[in-house]
Amino acid sequence: MGANNQQMMSAPTSPEAIAALPGHQVELATETPMPLDSGEQFGPVRIAYTTAGALNQDKTNAILICHALTGDQYVAEPHPVTGKPGWWEALVGPGKPIDTDRFFIICSNVLGGCMGSSGPLDINPATGKPYGTEFPVITIGDMVRAQALLMDHLGIETLFSVIGGSMGGMQVLEWAARYPERVFSAIPIATAAHHTAQNIAFDEVGRQAVMADPDWCGGKYLEASKKPRSGLAVARMAAHITYLSEPALQRKFGRTLQDRADITFGFDADFQVESYLRYQGSTFVERFDANSYLYITRAMDYFDLGTHQESRLAELFQDTPVRFCVASFTSDWLFPTSESLRLVHALNAASADVSFVEIETDKGHDAFLLDEPQFEAMIRGFLDGAAQDRGLLPNLKPKAEATQLEMDVDRTVRVDLNLIAGLVTPESTVLDIGCGDGALLAHLRDGRSVKGRGIEIDQGLVRGAVSRGLTAIQGDAERDLEHYPDDSFDYAILGQTLQAMHEPRRMLEQMLRIGRHAVISFQNFGHWRVRASLGLSGRMPVTSALPHTWYNTPNIHFFTINDFIDLADEMGLEIEAAKVVLDTSFGGGRVVDYKRLSRWHNLLGEQAVFRVKRG
Amino acid sequence: MGANNQQMMSAPTSPEAIAALPGHQVELATETPMPLDSGEQFGPVRIAYTTAGALNQDKTNAILICHALTGDQYVAEPHPVTGKPGWWEALVGPGKPIDTDRFFIICSNVLGGCMGSSGPLDINPATGKPYGTEFPVITIGDMVRAQALLMDHLGIETLFSVIGGSMGGMQVLEWAARYPERVFSAIPIATAAHHTAQNIAFDEVGRQAVMADPDWCGGKYLEASKKPRSGLAVARMAAHITYLSEPALQRKFGRTLQDRADITFGFDADFQVESYLRYQGSTFVERFDANSYLYITRAMDYFDLGTHQESRLAELFQDTPVRFCVASFTSDWLFPTSESLRLVHALNAASADVSFVEIETDKGHDAFLLDEPQFEAMIRGFLDGAAQDRGLLPNLKPKAEATQLEMDVDRTVRVDLNLIAGLVTPESTVLDIGCGDGALLAHLRDGRSVKGRGIEIDQGLVRGAVSRGLTAIQGDAERDLEHYPDDSFDYAILGQTLQAMHEPRRMLEQMLRIGRHAVISFQNFGHWRVRASLGLSGRMPVTSALPHTWYNTPNIHFFTINDFIDLADEMGLEIEAAKVVLDTSFGGGRVVDYKRLSRWHNLLGEQAVFRVKRG
Repeated sequence: MGANNQQMMSAPTSPEAIAALPGHQVELATETPMPLDSGEQFGPVRIAYTTAGALNQDKTNAILICHALTGDQYVAEPHPVTGKPGWWEALVGPGKPIDTDRFFIICSNVLGGCMGSSGPLDINPATGKPYGTEFPVITIGDMVRAQALLMDHLGIETLFSVIGGSMGGMQVLEWAARYPERVFSAIPIATAAHHTAQNIAFDEVGRQAVMADPDWCGGKYLEASKKPRSGLAVARMAAHITYLSEPALQRKFGRTLQDRADITFGFDADFQVESYLRYQGSTFVERFDANSYLYITRAMDYFDLGTHQESRLAELFQDTPVRFCVASFTSDWLFPTSESLRLVHALNAASADVSFVEIETDKGHDAFLLDEPQFEAMIRGFLDGAAQDRGLLPNLKPKAEATQLEMDVDRTVRVDLNLIAGLVTPESTVLDIGCGDGALLAHLRDGRSVKGRGIEIDQGLVRGAVSRGLTAIQGDAERDLEHYPDDSFDYAILGQTLQAMHEPRRMLEQMLRIGRHAVISFQNFGHWRVRASLGLSGRMPVTSALPHTWYNTPNIHFFTINDFIDLADEMGLEIEAAKVVLDTSFGGGRVVDYKRLSRWHNLLGEQAVFRVKRG
Repeated sequence: MGANNQQMMSAPTSPEAIAALPGHQVELATETPMPLDSGEQFGPVRIAYTTAGALNQDKTNAILICHALTGDQYVAEPHPVTGKPGWWEALVGPGKPIDTDRFFIICSNVLGGCMGSSGPLDINPATGKPYGTEFPVITIGDMVRAQALLMDHLGIETLFSVIGGSMGGMQVLEWAARYPERVFSAIPIATAAHHTAQNIAFDEVGRQAVMADPDWCGGKYLEASKKPRSGLAVARMAAHITYLSEPALQRKFGRTLQDRADITFGFDADFQVESYLRYQGSTFVERFDANSYLYITRAMDYFDLGTHQESRLAELFQDTPVRFCVASFTSDWLFPTSESLRLVHALNAASADVSFVEIETDKGHDAFLLDEPQFEAMIRGFLDGAAQDRGLLPNLKPKAEATQLEMDVDRTVRVDLNLIAGLVTPESTVLDIGCGDGALLAHLRDGRSVKGRGIEIDQGLVRGAVSRGLTAIQGDAERDLEHYPDDSFDYAILGQTLQAMHEPRRMLEQMLRIGRHAVISFQNFGHWRVRASLGLSGRMPVTSALPHTWYNTPNIHFFTINDFIDLADEMGLEIEAAKVVLDTSFGGGRVVDYKRLSRWHNLLGEQAVFRVKRG
């Protein structure tokens, strides 16, 4: 590559230089032109792409990686202009999360790009001059349509997965919406189903900066042998700030000065962050075409899946066969978690199979390109789980790691998981609220063929669940249950968590809206040990079942079996079944139907599991 | 003004046009030049300013208002170029929060500005040509030094208040740090004690946009009869995004199209947000000077009070006589609340008299310029309280509104406030944790001459406390107490809230680090009615003292008097005094020393107040 680098230190602008780019180039839509969203017809469409790994005989192991605004097809091999490693080498390669030993990877330069695919650099056959701004305005939909033609060309009917971050994520969503039958799984990362007003505003600043540069020459700078360097550099500088985060800038640069002991009282780059930005601007100009920048930002602005309504988005994906894994990053303010959640809530409302994790990082939007072990583990886990279901991997349970359930059934404290499982009909659907790392879901799936989904507030536990091929969403059940439609599950399950909820009654109401039945397990605060502690010693109880002292317990709303029965009565619920676990003194953990205990259940029961339904 | 508007539709650039600006202009430092932070000397210094209201005989009612980056001296009168109302007419005027019937208002164009104060538009006497970038680089310190000269000129020794938002807030902080004896009160709004890396980065983008414009002519555009319109417009567009918020942009514009039914597939302003931004850019160019923009952004970049360390910031303000009122806005991401908190924590560590409120709004950084009733109420309340202490207003308590204490002493439930007051020595210092609207603080101040400060999580209640002239900080006591130094108060008080804390033990530890004594009141879960409810009926208690059902109580950690005594013992605390309120059956709310009840306190006491100290 070294020699190549030396030859090509700036972006290819001549047809010869474009043809000489490493990787593949193919002409598509040669016979019939491709219709564009604008109504124009365009063809032939040249697409430049790279591949890695080998396509299997069934052609079922192909993964399409979609690049972001200023990315390109060099996902896992060095960039021919900058000589830098592939932009996603952290994730793509042999043994890596997107494993080229298992999967066949395709990454193509988008339509309208400047690294070999048809774009404004090309010669317009009608004039014999570069298109410039005569190139038709393209959309994310057009980019994806061209990629679909490429898949036809490669003979790939169904992609095992489509993956991408930022604008790449928009393409993933477009694929899933437009060609659901051609996509087994989809991983939209740090993205949104529509471009927000703020993002359009930033894009517009960048375009205005380019167009304000006299060297832009109304878009005809190639003919004038010029380049709008200053304008494109300013555009990149402004955009680059939005890819980072305030904490990351603070951590990396803070107010540190650049190679000087004190400020110079002038307009030089006194601060490191200034010279860093200037460098980002000037290097970008070398590798990117200004008109492509205009076209691709415009495509992002125009992106609006479901015409900006969550309900329309849900309609678009109603009963989609695609399984989704959505990821966002805490410090990303360009494509904030709220946008991913909007998507997740719509997918929930569409009863889609969707997992979601918000990765904790201070690296901002760019985190998806950087070294983020938690993110990589999640991608690996999701792909492995999907690969098993797709028959690409043997269905092996890791034997070394026992599931939490297997470890816990020995302990009295989680005996409720077995009780819960006993109250759930085989082959039913379940929402496990506070699913942890998926112990119960895995148990129900493997033992009772239950189709389960989970919601869990702890990021690490959700990643754990997703990594074992389960469907789980990182979320706060007290806020997020409202996004699930009525009757979307046979059972809503809440194990040992009602007493840690801020609004237990509201939780129960939500569970019985979403689920036809609710199954709840809890510690009984009416147990005789508890009463004895408080009644006789006048102290808050500390028992084997309630092991915390009053000032460090996670439980914030204690209640008794009778309290629960009263509440069920008040809410007009029907108690279908209930089991009570007796304490060691009276039956050593024996499980008894609560009715058989007559009025003693509230005194003798250490924990209880209730199955209720609307009355 | 109308005629004037017609004459002056663009920024004044000639000496004659500058001299003709409405308002006052004064030449300062005419004999000795003013030293600048850069080491240069500059003089004479021309400062353009406006005033409103009348200066009282003692010259004690003057308020200096400091403007932000693109603001000017026209705070309460129409702008001579745009004809728009004064930029802070919402707050400044007769009967308004900054009341010109009471106060004498001064607002001056900053040094380096372009509305009449000395700046790069001026003729450089050394060359006979406009300074341009030959003007010395100035700092926030230099701006304030020039304002201090103006105060000397006006014969104002001590300002009743210095108020400003954004860069205006930086000037406020500089005033308080440099001239504490000349500032009675300070209101830094939506600001920071240093410019962050991200803000420097945005400023640098703006400067690069200006300098990239060929019409900037290396800063000498006036001589060339040009103006870097495109560059300055791009700078303004980028900056303008940072003054708003994503939710506000979404609410105002969303993806709404501009005067068209569908997107045009082109680079026109399809979206309203685009034409709005373009309009902001083009109108700004009419009223502002590009070089001033460079100089003023640079001054912000250089601002770093306390050299970027919270501890240094605390040193700077140690035992300052200035009373502060800090305000931030929830959706402000340019000067986020975290920066205001950094300042508040440093001021707390410096034992300064500081109030703080974070105003809930989606309007972003610009909120301080817009109609925000809660913000205005807070400014009014703080100024009124300070004016009473300064002897500018009669010390009248509003009679119509009884304080919460006065209302509550009739109810058994808040009898603890009187008990707490009885355990606090007159003329001591107090931190009231969860101070509500300041009922106890006001009671202690008025009845026992106690110097109190409060911390409260609810914004509305903090505003209420500040509005009655009390010192209160909006904060989460479970996180924020760590910023107070050891032994900073005689008493740390926690009324009826320990049971609502997530970590009650840690709270007690913090209280006894900050305070020499801690006073805690709570409901006794060991009371016989509670025990009877749970022990006999097997249900969580609902009593007059604990009126909530188990599923909607705000209390998350119940405990008994004995639990508390055990914890005090475990922590090695000495119980100095304790009072128990008996329930209606046994003495009708009678208050008894807990020791006199022997072992019956835990059974008969409905509530208790303890005063403890480190053992």
